[in-house]
Amino acid sequence: MSDVKKVVLAYSGGLDTSVIVKWLQETYDCEVVTFTADIGQGEEVEPARAKAEALGVKEIYIEDLREEYVRDYVYPMFRANTIYEGEYLLGTSIARPLIAKRLIDIANQTGADAISHGATGKGNDQVRFELGAYALKPGVKVIAPWREWDLNSREKLMAYCEQHQIPVDFSTSKKKSPYSMDANLLHISYEGGNLEDPWEEAEEDMWRWSVSPEAAPDTPTYIELTYERGDIVAIDGETLKPHEVLSKLNQLGGDNGIGRLDIVENRYVGMKSRGCYETPGGTIMLRAHRAIESLTLDREAAHLKDELMPKYAEVIYNGYWWSPERKMLQAAIDETQKDVSGVVRMKLYKGSATVVGRKSDQSLFDESIATFEDDAGAYDQKDAEGFIKLNALRLRIAAGKGRDQS
Amino acid sequence: MSDVKKVVLAYSGGLDTSVIVKWLQETYDCEVVTFTADIGQGEEVEPARAKAEALGVKEIYIEDLREEYVRDYVYPMFRANTIYEGEYLLGTSIARPLIAKRLIDIANQTGADAISHGATGKGNDQVRFELGAYALKPGVKVIAPWREWDLNSREKLMAYCEQHQIPVDFSTSKKKSPYSMDANLLHISYEGGNLEDPWEEAEEDMWRWSVSPEAAPDTPTYIELTYERGDIVAIDGETLKPHEVLSKLNQLGGDNGIGRLDIVENRYVGMKSRGCYETPGGTIMLRAHRAIESLTLDREAAHLKDELMPKYAEVIYNGYWWSPERKMLQAAIDETQKDVSGVVRMKLYKGSATVVGRKSDQSLFDESIATFEDDAGAYDQKDAEGFIKLNALRLRIAAGKGRDQS
Amino acid sequence: MSDVKKVVLAYSGGLDTSVIVKWLQETYDCEVVTFTADIGQGEEVEPARAKAEALGVKEIYIEDLREEYVRDYVYPMFRANTIYEGEYLLGTSIARPLIAKRLIDIANQTGADAISHGATGKGNDQVRFELGAYALKPGVKVIAPWREWDLNSREKLMAYCEQHQIPVDFSTSKKKSPYSMDANLLHISYEGGNLEDPWEEAEEDMWRWSVSPEAAPDTPTYIELTYERGDIVAIDGETLKPHEVLSKLNQLGGDNGIGRLDIVENRYVGMKSRGCYETPGGTIMLRAHRAIESLTLDREAAHLKDELMPKYAEVIYNGYWWSPERKMLQAAIDETQKDVSGVVRMKLYKGSATVVGRKSDQSLFDESIATFEDDAGAYDQKDAEGFIKLNALRLRIAAGKGRDQS
Amino acid sequence: MSDVKKVVLAYSGGLDTSVIVKWLQETYDCEVVTFTADIGQGEEVEPARAKAEALGVKEIYIEDLREEYVRDYVYPMFRANTIYEGEYLLGTSIARPLIAKRLIDIANQTGADAISHGATGKGNDQVRFELGAYALKPGVKVIAPWREWDLNSREKLMAYCEQHQIPVDFSTSKKKSPYSMDANLLHISYEGGNLEDPWEEAEEDMWRWSVSPEAAPDTPTYIELTYERGDIVAIDGETLKPHEVLSKLNQLGGDNGIGRLDIVENRYVGMKSRGCYETPGGTIMLRAHRAIESLTLDREAAHLKDELMPKYAEVIYNGYWWSPERKMLQAAIDETQKDVSGVVRMKLYKGSATVVGRKSDQSLFDESIATFEDDAGAYDQKDAEGFIKLNALRLRIAAGKGRDQS
Repeated sequence: MSDVKKVVLAYSGGLDTSVIVKWLQETYDCEVVTFTADIGQGEEVEPARAKAEALGVKEIYIEDLREEYVRDYVYPMFRANTIYEGEYLLGTSIARPLIAKRLIDIANQTGADAISHGATGKGNDQVRFELGAYALKPGVKVIAPWREWDLNSREKLMAYCEQHQIPVDFSTSKKKSPYSMDANLLHISYEGGNLEDPWEEAEEDMWRWSVSPEAAPDTPTYIELTYERGDIVAIDGETLKPHEVLSKLNQLGGDNGIGRLDIVENRYVGMKSRGCYETPGGTIMLRAHRAIESLTLDREAAHLKDELMPKYAEVIYNGYWWSPERKMLQAAIDETQKDVSGVVRMKLYKGSATVVGRKSDQSLFDESIATFEDDAGAYDQKDAEGFIKLNALRLRIAAGKGRDQS
Repeated sequence: MSDVKKVVLAYSGGLDTSVIVKWLQETYDCEVVTFTADIGQGEEVEPARAKAEALGVKEIYIEDLREEYVRDYVYPMFRANTIYEGEYLLGTSIARPLIAKRLIDIANQTGADAISHGATGKGNDQVRFELGAYALKPGVKVIAPWREWDLNSREKLMAYCEQHQIPVDFSTSKKKSPYSMDANLLHISYEGGNLEDPWEEAEEDMWRWSVSPEAAPDTPTYIELTYERGDIVAIDGETLKPHEVLSKLNQLGGDNGIGRLDIVENRYVGMKSRGCYETPGGTIMLRAHRAIESLTLDREAAHLKDELMPKYAEVIYNGYWWSPERKMLQAAIDETQKDVSGVVRMKLYKGSATVVGRKSDQSLFDESIATFEDDAGAYDQKDAEGFIKLNALRLRIAAGKGRDQS
Repeated sequence: MSDVKKVVLAYSGGLDTSVIVKWLQETYDCEVVTFTADIGQGEEVEPARAKAEALGVKEIYIEDLREEYVRDYVYPMFRANTIYEGEYLLGTSIARPLIAKRLIDIANQTGADAISHGATGKGNDQVRFELGAYALKPGVKVIAPWREWDLNSREKLMAYCEQHQIPVDFSTSKKKSPYSMDANLLHISYEGGNLEDPWEEAEEDMWRWSVSPEAAPDTPTYIELTYERGDIVAIDGETLKPHEVLSKLNQLGGDNGIGRLDIVENRYVGMKSRGCYETPGGTIMLRAHRAIESLTLDREAAHLKDELMPKYAEVIYNGYWWSPERKMLQAAIDETQKDVSGVVRMKLYKGSATVVGRKSDQSLFDESIATFEDDAGAYDQKDAEGFIKLNALRLRIAAGKGRDQS
Repeated sequence: MSDVKKVVLAYSGGLDTSVIVKWLQETYDCEVVTFTADIGQGEEVEPARAKAEALGVKEIYIEDLREEYVRDYVYPMFRANTIYEGEYLLGTSIARPLIAKRLIDIANQTGADAISHGATGKGNDQVRFELGAYALKPGVKVIAPWREWDLNSREKLMAYCEQHQIPVDFSTSKKKSPYSMDANLLHISYEGGNLEDPWEEAEEDMWRWSVSPEAAPDTPTYIELTYERGDIVAIDGETLKPHEVLSKLNQLGGDNGIGRLDIVENRYVGMKSRGCYETPGGTIMLRAHRAIESLTLDREAAHLKDELMPKYAEVIYNGYWWSPERKMLQAAIDETQKDVSGVVRMKLYKGSATVVGRKSDQSLFDESIATFEDDAGAYDQKDAEGFIKLNALRLRIAAGKGRDQS
């Protein structure tokens, strides 16, 4: 294990990754570079500096990546109305490629030959981090301590801390949750604890980002979202940067009990797992984006997007953001968004985000044709007969030849 | 036009189709057979008999098709988690193939050589009726009065009624709505009126099947849905027939403000149109079915279903139920449902239908593997390394050859 | 019919379109602009000028579009390995969008309000011309004489010619074929005659562009095709323009009996039809392109291309080149071609075009890994175990829960 | 390694698997059961008995699986016109699921707790064997000696043989080829040797099943293939069992130089590899099946099959025959084959298998409609206008709103 000289670690400042710092130094006898990013998880990142220093780390990277995260990852993904297995908005998945990219960037900058992360061997995140790292720096060494060490219980971790004088108050700063949680600007996730029985309802005090629908205001909130080329650029007429949009929508959604999700999902590593998610802003964005597309996007482009979406979602979920197939799909998706501009009006109320209006200068809705009133000849109803007749021709021939089609 | 001897008309008993009876008799000098079906539209069908008799109709078919409708059309469609353009549950589309089939059955029984319907020349329903009819009886003559006649205003219709002594009180039995509406056990739809401006919010008094979320009870309702092979067979432990299930869910959903939808959709005939829908039961069913599948369906089968679904939805929306491609897709879908059995627990509250638990004897959720606790060797975390390494291999080779993958 | 002032006609100079000139002048009392293009059909286009002048046409457009045709239509299509219904290389379909575009360009230049073409009402070409025209100039009037007039037999056409003094020697310049034929640089097609019985073999003297395999040389011809970004740029080291490449490959293929095809295909208008095609160059290009991709394209991008291809082929076959969905697919396809460069070596022999070698600076083939010999640790065979184990996990869990998977 | 009591080995009787017998006995101190199958590889299987006995094997299974192989694996696959990456007919892939199934059957019969195979750690076959085994018997132990032992050179193998008195004349019975080969009734494959350079042409004396096109007869051979429900049941009117059909077509194809293929393919384990294949019968079958479908299959079913095929091919190539997704796809495919019956006439000549005629009682080709002659009103050309107009509507609206569609 002596061949690793320097390793860049995705460092949260928490207990687990602090143990990893020490374990890497000791096991690999190498320098550790820490990388801590603010991607909207809702915790201060600056305190990670002192902790890293205390662990003897000399190269410490602390970065605010919120804008880049939403602009270059979340927004492109929402252009596809992306949803995994009909329910999941990919809040964890979409944050991983950026982390992987920064780990590799920093490895290149600091001359490190390895990267490391604190993801376990059962989950999707290890896959996402490592696929990204390998795609961007093929010769990199990846160290996944949870797959290597034997500190696989809280007791052993604590013993390790004591033995290596790692201050354990790290972890006691907030009341220990029974859930395994992860958060970024798009969502917060919960796994483990009583969720391991899919029949048990999640406890109310588990949820952190949203009030319950029951506790939400009794009057609805209306908002207007302005789209340009598939992306939200303003809320209620106020121009905002991407991460500001998402922050604001998280607040609006959370206040109205919007975005809670409780699912069983299929992990890439082959097992089913139960997870709960709060995605207040994303839940609003998904419906709003469909609404602006409904007015401005061509039917066949829209249908083709719908056919490609499950694949695109799978690609992201499985960790292949940095791949030819993702770029290929993105090219198709982005090609369709040129005219996806306009305004969507939504009603937020006790858990529901409902579209109530949409308008656009690029609208393809043609009132003169769609009307139930006299259309002054804009549409010739006689055309429908030929349309139907030729579309039916293959069916008629088959039936005429005796095929039973019922 | 003298070549038509007998025509079977889809007859609602309302003003428009009553005019059609007379117009057919007069224009084609032919016998008219009326067919009126209860598919759960919420209006009595028996009164259509007297009306038809008054118009001189001798062969009158009045049928209760609710069970057949839900069992053979709605249920198969829901096995696919079918949704058109990300939003629409196809409540109108799925009722048409059954009507088409019965029209043709009756044509065969009565020796009729033509069928007729009251759908307009701008909509999807003409396509659905006629594609079905041609597929089942290729030589049938289809008469679509709205594409042929010149009675294209209410005034002309009224004048026609007066001239032909058709009792107009037909239509005044209920207050005239400004909307064009259609209903069956799966949904009620609204088009026209102020909905023709997609920016205008639907008026509260338009909705008929559900209370508003604001007016719904302040306490949630919990229900348990029992699935067998992909279909709901019981609610809260009570075994019900398919149409009873849907009726019950409509009531439960409607009471809790669930199932309202306001969209702009792409019609098969080429235009965008704005429609509002209430699908209380269907909205619950969609989420519940996904939930039972999440526990019992293999990942790759589930993903493949998701990839096929948009096509399947399009096939139904466009009117190709009676087609080889629909049967082909159905065969694939039904193949997957053998083990989709179990119970889903849902919370209904002020517009939201939320899954809160799911269990099944056929569950593929394996607690011993999924657990965050010690899994006693059920899953070897070391396997993940090889899994990632080989999945990354193509990306590493490409990066190693100098491809920029960022 | 008096509302048409000027119409641009796709004019071949042959008998049928000459009749159309006169018929348009007479029926619509309008000016006719003729447009004749060289797209490699193998006949002189310049003679069309005198013929048009003789018919009183004042605005005559004669253009050599061969380079544009291959560069902007044929080449992009071949990047997708496009093939309709497993066999057909779309030689007719891909020529239509360019004709449609030029008709509209000329209509705009000459202030014409209509376009016209000589395609019949049973075929795909009318659809392709007209969809293109409507997409590029939505208000254009389209006149399709074969759907309107009653000159639906050769006798009536001849009578019309005599009556209107149209010189019939037009059509007698070459021996009248029993087949309906169409040609451009990509292929020549044959329909009708004894081909209308799908069981009858095409007669040897029908074929015009290729010798029979039996008559081809007894020694193979080897060629090397150089690709850049998915397109052929040189043959045997000689740099050529796109249309020169295709001409040269047509000659090489035709000389070696390559590219004959005899199929029954499904037309967009709903019927099956039997057609024979000679596509010598295209047949070589399809296999060669796959070969260069096999070396340079990522696996998942390649597979995704294969999944999208049938849709892309259908879009082109049906006439939707000028559509959002085609552009969307093209964006995805073109994104993958950046590194599709290198050389393919082929053997042409008596009807077969066989790939015998391929090389590329962008090759992703890694000999050090692929070797059956010792790979010096480039690939760790132990990784395969984890890879298989996790890929099998969902299957094992299902089997363990009693699912019968056989 | 003491937990394995009995292992079933896929035993060819060759040197490598004989070494494996001994190595398993020694390393795992367990009983070895050998399983040798005739799947048409062209070598006697009975001699494997004496060899196994000589190695101390007590339970020896030798089976003729040729009929089952073609009937239950090859035929269903050809119903889908299956082809991997546009070229490869999956001759190796499709033989693996049957071997896996028999290994597990025998394990169950003999009370074995493990299976073993002689596939290397770099290839696809290990994946196919093991995924199948795990799917059918989730708790089975899989032993893959090539991934475990250190006998990774011919010298070490020979030394092992000498040390363990394994008769080496096993392998010298036929001249040692420089290629790694594998054969079954569908094909023979070649890898390694000079093929490891994708630019080098395969040597003529490598090919074993076919003459070169140059050496094939100078006159074509015509054959007629009779299909029932998608499968060939007779050749030239002679009823044959599935494996007899394939044998006969292999002979006919091989005699005419048909079925050679030279490709670079993407392995599931992440690398590209170069392989050569001879698939004489399969090459004929693929084209013939498309031809009978062209006459009897509905257009939309055919197109949907084409869209699903790449996925189906990938599923088989990757080793997921025994999976829910394969069964799902098979259900869709088989649903379409009910009327795929009739006769295809083919011309075999110097490397080419060409369709020259097809006929069927289930034909959907309608001469009265398709004809260029007068169709007596079977098709109304006027219908085409409405068909085009409505299909163009969305494009016209978009263009009318100023969208540039060129």
